[in-house]
Order: sequence, then structure tokens, then C-alpha cells
Amino acid sequence: MKQILITAGGTAEKIDQVRSITNHSTGKLGSLIAEAFLAHGYQVDYLTTSTALRPVNQDGLALHFIQDTKELDETLTWLLQQKPYDAVIHSMAVSDFTPANSFSLEAFTEKINQELTKHSAPFTKEDVASLIEQTTAQETATKISSDTDYLFLVLKKTPKVIKKIKEIQPNTILVSFKLLVNVTQETLFEVAQESMAKNHGDYVLANDLTSIHVGSHTGYLIDKEGTLIGGAQTKADIAKLITDTLLDRRAD
Amino acid sequence: MKQILITAGGTAEKIDQVRSITNHSTGKLGSLIAEAFLAHGYQVDYLTTSTALRPVNQDGLALHFIQDTKELDETLTWLLQQKPYDAVIHSMAVSDFTPANSFSLEAFTEKINQELTKHSAPFTKEDVASLIEQTTAQETATKISSDTDYLFLVLKKTPKVIKKIKEIQPNTILVSFKLLVNVTQETLFEVAQESMAKNHGDYVLANDLTSIHVGSHTGYLIDKEGTLIGGAQTKADIAKLITDTLLDRRAD
Repeated sequence: MKQILITAGGTAEKIDQVRSITNHSTGKLGSLIAEAFLAHGYQVDYLTTSTALRPVNQDGLALHFIQDTKELDETLTWLLQQKPYDAVIHSMAVSDFTPANSFSLEAFTEKINQELTKHSAPFTKEDVASLIEQTTAQETATKISSDTDYLFLVLKKTPKVIKKIKEIQPNTILVSFKLLVNVTQETLFEVAQESMAKNHGDYVLANDLTSIHVGSHTGYLIDKEGTLIGGAQTKADIAKLITDTLLDRRAD
Repeated sequence: MKQILITAGGTAEKIDQVRSITNHSTGKLGSLIAEAFLAHGYQVDYLTTSTALRPVNQDGLALHFIQDTKELDETLTWLLQQKPYDAVIHSMAVSDFTPANSFSLEAFTEKINQELTKHSAPFTKEDVASLIEQTTAQETATKISSDTDYLFLVLKKTPKVIKKIKEIQPNTILVSFKLLVNVTQETLFEVAQESMAKNHGDYVLANDLTSIHVGSHTGYLIDKEGTLIGGAQTKADIAKLITDTLLDRRAD
């Protein structure tokens, strides 16, 4: 059985019951990659969000929906434990941060002041650093008060879900994505390769937001030896580049 | 000419080029209201986002797309200045806050400490309050650093766009929406009426998130005298309640 796992779309981290922090991604590129593999007779597990675009071809496709990085982590881990994948193509835009706490400017100032009054002056730099850190790290159910001009939203780093892929399936082929904003091609390639190495990826698709427009999308596929496999100018061509590279590899 | 302006969907405030704070709203209810008015021969200016659901009926419909509260403000103001509306139905979920600045925990602490060293100790409560306020109010282009465990996102209050509606067109009929989370019906009605009065609205549709589920949506229409016009249990019924109320009023 030829099996592929594809993630696509962007995560949404809840701030409260009516607001989220969302990572922009239409899911279009992931859906094109899925369609290409489906056309080659692969079974595709497609992990996405309810609002992202999906592959049109439904034959051989299994959809799995997630909303935030926590659900992504759970579903991805579960799928990787169920069956071996020929490849995992992780194109989802995953949030680096998730809301941990929020304060109005007034409440934040009040909290810092409360702590300061427990100390005797003068305060050291370390006193201030430590109390800001304590205040920040108190995680509570975030509930936005609209009764303030300024609001502090404290975000904490999310765990790197991508690291789990090779931990659970060391023999799968991992294709990761790196999106930067307005950098030189040299920097783009460097940062993309570093990120691939850190996650034990086999290929990385490097792209820059300033080269993504309606109808065009520049992307470069680089392998773990640092070889530029190829470049593409549209989402359809990027999908073809990735699919052809993985199918050729299998045919070798 | 019978003309209606409807806003629907939820705004998205950019944090940086790849992330936004979004207010959840599918736009379904707004699209049903639009369809009901279109069926009665109205011209509908429909102000929404690119990701929200839209009316199916296209005859008499003009779509206007916005992303954030600033664009909503501009487009709404422009439309209101162009032509008189029989009614404005403002169902869009509009963000109360927009990103103004962001700091890593380290950068924030460093900034506060820099300011503290300019003062001689002991600091008063007011000193600390004032320097947190100064640091917060410095608006910069937000660029998220992922190189930190905790990130402070400073949000500032957005202007109340809804207030402009009656300022520009005092004679239009304004229907506003009030969504609360898990409150008593008494509180819901009170808060909804206060909000209607503040914005010089004529009707308010009051609803509670805990009474909105797939296939059901409880809503109450209240007029500016505080009379409960009616209740409804689905989005289609809410759309009918609002449409019938406005059409009856016109017929009187």
C-alpha cells in the first residue's frame, strides 16, 4: 500500500471563545499535492482545518480535521502510530505561539505594583525581571476585557510538532516547508536548510512571502545534502516538483 | 429604490504578515438576511470578508470586501456617504482590539529596566504605572520574534465603527447585534439594550454563544423601546424575524 500523510492549511489558536490567532494559509498548495498523489493511486491521509481548501478528488482520501497546535500534535502523533507512511508532507502553517494569559494595562500595572510593594526598594534589575516573568507565566483562562484602551496578550511558545515525525517514523521521507518574508535567496536557502536539519527532514520547500501572489508562487525544493532539486513559479508547479521528486525516488 | 446595507463575517487584524487575530463568524446569518431582502426586490450592499459565506442569490447584490476594522471603517463610511439606505444591518463580528506592538519577555523586561535605571529608587506605584504605559504605547511595526518562550502582544482598542452609521445617516434603521457568552437572559437583554442605546440603534439582535450550535441558534430581537419583538431558534428564523420586522415597519 502506498501511503502519504499531508498537512495543509493554517492553525488557529483560541484567545477566547470568539477570537483566535490564525496563521494564514489557504491550503491550496497542500490540496494540489494531495491530488497529484491521489492520481498516482496513493492513499492520502489529509490533516487540515475546516476552513482550508481541500482536494477535489475524494477517492483514496481520508480527511482529518484539527484547529490548533494541540489538536495537530494529537492527531499527527496518532496517525503516525497507526500506519507507516512513504512520505509526510508537512505544509501546514503552524502557530509558533498560543495565548497563555491576558491583562488589561491597568490589571498588569496593578499586578506588577503589588509584587513591587512586597520588596524593599531599591529593586534590582533581576527583581523586576523575575516579577514580570512570574506575572507572565501565570496561566489563566483568557477572557478579554474590552473595558481598557490597551490589552496585554501573553503568548507562550508551542511545542515543535514537526520534530515528532521522524521520532515516530525514522524511515519516512519528510518534506517540510519554510516561509520567510523579504530575505535574499541566500538567507532563504540557509534558514530553510537549518530548519530541515533540525527536524531531520529529507527535503525542504523554501519560499518567500514577497514572491507569492495571486496566480504565482515561487518555491525551491532543496534536499538534505543541500542540493537544489528545482524551482517552480506556481502552486501547481511546486506540487508537481514535490510529487515528481518523491515518485522518482521511489522508482529508483 | 429599496436599499439595504448588510455587514457580515468577522474581521481579521494583522499581527504581522503571516498571522492575524480573527473574530469567529461564518457569515451565514448575514447571508440569509441578504437573501431574504434580495427576494423582496431590494438592492443589497454586502460588506464582508473574502473567507465568509456569501448570499447565493446574486441579483441585486453588490459585494464589498474588507479585512480589518480600518478597512471596514473606510468602506462603511464611503458607502454611507454614497446613497441613503432604508436599513443598515450590522451583523459583522468586529474586533475590539488591534495589534499595536509586540515584545519578547526578554525585550520587555529590558525596556522596563532601562527606564527604571533613569529613576532614583524607591519607585512609586505611579512611576511603574507610567513607564509600563509608555512602553506599551510605543507603536511599532509588529514583527514576531520566535526566539523567545513568552511573547507580549500589546493590543489597542479599535474605534467603534458602528457609531458612524447614525452619525452619517440619522434616518436609516439600524439593526445591531450583541453576542455574549454564558450569561442570564436578563443580563443579555440589559447589555444588548445598553449597546443599542449607545450606538443609537433601532433594533438589537441579542444572542449567547452557549445557545449557538450546529443547526440551532437562539436569538432575540429587541426594539429601542425595550420591547421584545420576538425570539428565534435557527439562523433562518432569525433572518426571517429581522426581515419581516423591517418589511412590516415599511408597510405601516
